[in-house]
Amino acid sequence: MKPAPRGPALITRGIILAIFAVLTAGTTLAQKPDPLPSWNPGPAKQSIVNFVRATTDPKSPQFVAPEDRIATFDQDGTLWVEQPFPTIGIYCLDRVPAIVAARPELKDVEPFKTVLSGDQAAIARLPMKDLETLLAAALTGMTTDQFQADVSHWLATAKDARWKRPYTELTYQPMQELLKYLRANGYKTYIVTGGGQDFLRVYAEKTYGIPPEQVIGTMSATTFSYDASGKPILIKVPKLLLNVDYAGKVEGIHLMIGRRPRASFGNTPGDQQMLEYTSAGDGARLAMLILHDDPVREYAYGPAKGLPHVAMGAFPQSYYDLAIKNGWIVVSMKNDWNRVFAFEK
Amino acid sequence: MKPAPRGPALITRGIILAIFAVLTAGTTLAQKPDPLPSWNPGPAKQSIVNFVRATTDPKSPQFVAPEDRIATFDQDGTLWVEQPFPTIGIYCLDRVPAIVAARPELKDVEPFKTVLSGDQAAIARLPMKDLETLLAAALTGMTTDQFQADVSHWLATAKDARWKRPYTELTYQPMQELLKYLRANGYKTYIVTGGGQDFLRVYAEKTYGIPPEQVIGTMSATTFSYDASGKPILIKVPKLLLNVDYAGKVEGIHLMIGRRPRASFGNTPGDQQMLEYTSAGDGARLAMLILHDDPVREYAYGPAKGLPHVAMGAFPQSYYDLAIKNGWIVVSMKNDWNRVFAFEK
Repeated sequence: MKPAPRGPALITRGIILAIFAVLTAGTTLAQKPDPLPSWNPGPAKQSIVNFVRATTDPKSPQFVAPEDRIATFDQDGTLWVEQPFPTIGIYCLDRVPAIVAARPELKDVEPFKTVLSGDQAAIARLPMKDLETLLAAALTGMTTDQFQADVSHWLATAKDARWKRPYTELTYQPMQELLKYLRANGYKTYIVTGGGQDFLRVYAEKTYGIPPEQVIGTMSATTFSYDASGKPILIKVPKLLLNVDYAGKVEGIHLMIGRRPRASFGNTPGDQQMLEYTSAGDGARLAMLILHDDPVREYAYGPAKGLPHVAMGAFPQSYYDLAIKNGWIVVSMKNDWNRVFAFEK
Repeated sequence: MKPAPRGPALITRGIILAIFAVLTAGTTLAQKPDPLPSWNPGPAKQSIVNFVRATTDPKSPQFVAPEDRIATFDQDGTLWVEQPFPTIGIYCLDRVPAIVAARPELKDVEPFKTVLSGDQAAIARLPMKDLETLLAAALTGMTTDQFQADVSHWLATAKDARWKRPYTELTYQPMQELLKYLRANGYKTYIVTGGGQDFLRVYAEKTYGIPPEQVIGTMSATTFSYDASGKPILIKVPKLLLNVDYAGKVEGIHLMIGRRPRASFGNTPGDQQMLEYTSAGDGARLAMLILHDDPVREYAYGPAKGLPHVAMGAFPQSYYDLAIKNGWIVVSMKNDWNRVFAFEK
C-alpha cells in the first residue's frame, strides 16, 4: 500500500480541498433554486418571502401552527385572465346553441335570441335579469355528473380568442409559483371566487393543484334524487345559496373553512372584504392585490399612469389608495413579473 | 482469528436461529398493536379491516388514490351519545336564562316561559315552531367570535345528567379508534351532522381530531359587518342555508367536499341517503350503521330483540331490513364493542 503524502504535499492537498469546499458551498448557495423565478426582485417578492419565513420558522415570534396556515386566492384576474369576460361567462354563452337545440321554444326569447345573433355589442348590453336567466339555463337543470362532463369537454376544446389557447393555459405563471411555494411551506391554498363553485372544481385540481374541497365559489343548491334505475343523483337547481363576492367572500370562507386566512390575494373591489378580514387577525398577515397594468403581455385596466379602465374587474384610484392606506401590497404585472404565462419562451 | 464453526455445530446454530426467527416473527405478529382494540372480533371489525386493506394496498385491484380517500361520519348517536337529547339541544335550553336576562320581555313568551318552568314533560311537548324560535334565539344574533366563546365556556362547565361528565367525554371509544385508523391509512375524516356547523366546530378538533374545514353541519348564514372600531366581524343570522339531514347530508357533502365518500357511518334514517350515495360509487365501499342495543352501558333504542324504541334517533325494523338488503354493516354496540367510553376501566 502506498503511504499517504506528507509535508508540503499534504498541505497543498489540504488547501485545495478547502478551496474546493468554499467553491462548492458558494455554488450550492448560488444554485439553490428560487421558488419564485417569475417574480422580479423588489418589495412585492420580498414581502412574500418575508411573510413565509416569519410564519414558518419555529423560532420566529410570528410562527403559525401548520393547521392555521390558510391562504385564499381570488380566481378571475388574480390567477388567470378575466378579459374580455370571465371564462365561466364564455362557457355560458357557448352553451346557448345546445340549450336552444334541447328547448327550441327559447330561440325567440331573450337573452337566447340576442346570444344566437352573435352581436357582441348587443350581448354586452344585456341587462342583469337576462344574464341571470342565461346563467340559470347554462348552469342548472342537469345532474352534477352531466355538468362535470360538459364542462370538461368544453375546456378540452374551447380556445381563447386572443392567445388561441385553452383557457386553462391562461393562468399566471408567477401565481402558480406562489401557490406551490406556499404549499411547500405548509399552507393550504384555497380559491375564493364569484364564479360557480362546481364549474371551477372541474379543473382546479389539474390546473392549480387545488382539490375540490378547497374551492369556494358562488354556491347554488343541488337536489338529491334517484335516476330511473334507482341510483342516487344530485340535480343542479337555480337556487342561490351564497354569492361569493364582496362580503360574500368572507361569509363563504367562514362557511367552508371556519378559520381566518393568514394570506389573501385578489385584484378587484370584490376582494376588499376578504383582504380586510385577513388583515384584521393577529400576527403576520399578507394581503396582496394584482394590478393589471401591462397592455402588451396581458391587459391594462388599473388606474396607474392613466391606463384606460374597462368595466369588468376595474381597479379604480380609490381602491388603489385604500390598498396603500391599509398596507396591502399592490403587485404591478408589468414591473413585478418577468413572465406572465408559462407558454412564453 | 477463530474459524467459523462447521459441521454439526453450524447445523445446530442454524436450527436455533431458524427457531428464533419463527418465534420472533410470531412474537412480532402477536405484539403488533391492534388499531381497533375496543372492537370485538367479528364481521363488523373484519369488514373495516378488509375495506382499509383493499383500498390502501397499491397492489389491490380496489386501490383508491389518497386524494379520494374520504370518510364521512354522522355525529349524534354515531360518534357520541344523543340521548335523552342531542347535546346542541341541551346547550340551547341552557342558554335560555341568559337570553331572558338580556331580553326580559321574553320571560312570559313561549317557548322561553316553558323552558324557564323546568317542566321536562312540557319542554318535551314543545311544538316544532317553538323549537325553531328557541334555536334561533340561542344560535343567532351574536358574532361568530362571541358564539365560539360561549360554547367553549358551556362545554367546559356543563355535565351530562347520567354520567356526570363533560359532554365531550361521551364519545364512543371504538369510533375514536376507527377515526384514527382511517386517518392513519390516508383517509380524510369528515363529520356530516344535522347539528349546527358552528357549534360542532368549537370542539371537533380537540374531541375528534377533525379540523373546522372538515365539519359539515346544518348551515346558517352569517352577515359580514364592522364593529364600532371598524374591525370586520361576522354576525350569525337566522337564515337557514342547508339542513344537513336526510337528502341534505348528500347535498352538504357535494357543497363542502365535491367528492363522493368511500366510507360512511351513521345510525338513523337521517343517514340513509348518505349511505346510499356512498355505496353507489365504483369499487370498494363501506357503509355502516350503529345499532343502539345496549341498555346497560349506553341506551337501547334499536329494533332488535323487542328493545323499547324512543322517538329521537330511533332505528325502526324497516330500516334494519333496508340495511341488510343493501349490504350495509349493522354494528351492535352490545356485541361488537368491548368498551363504549374511554373512561371505562
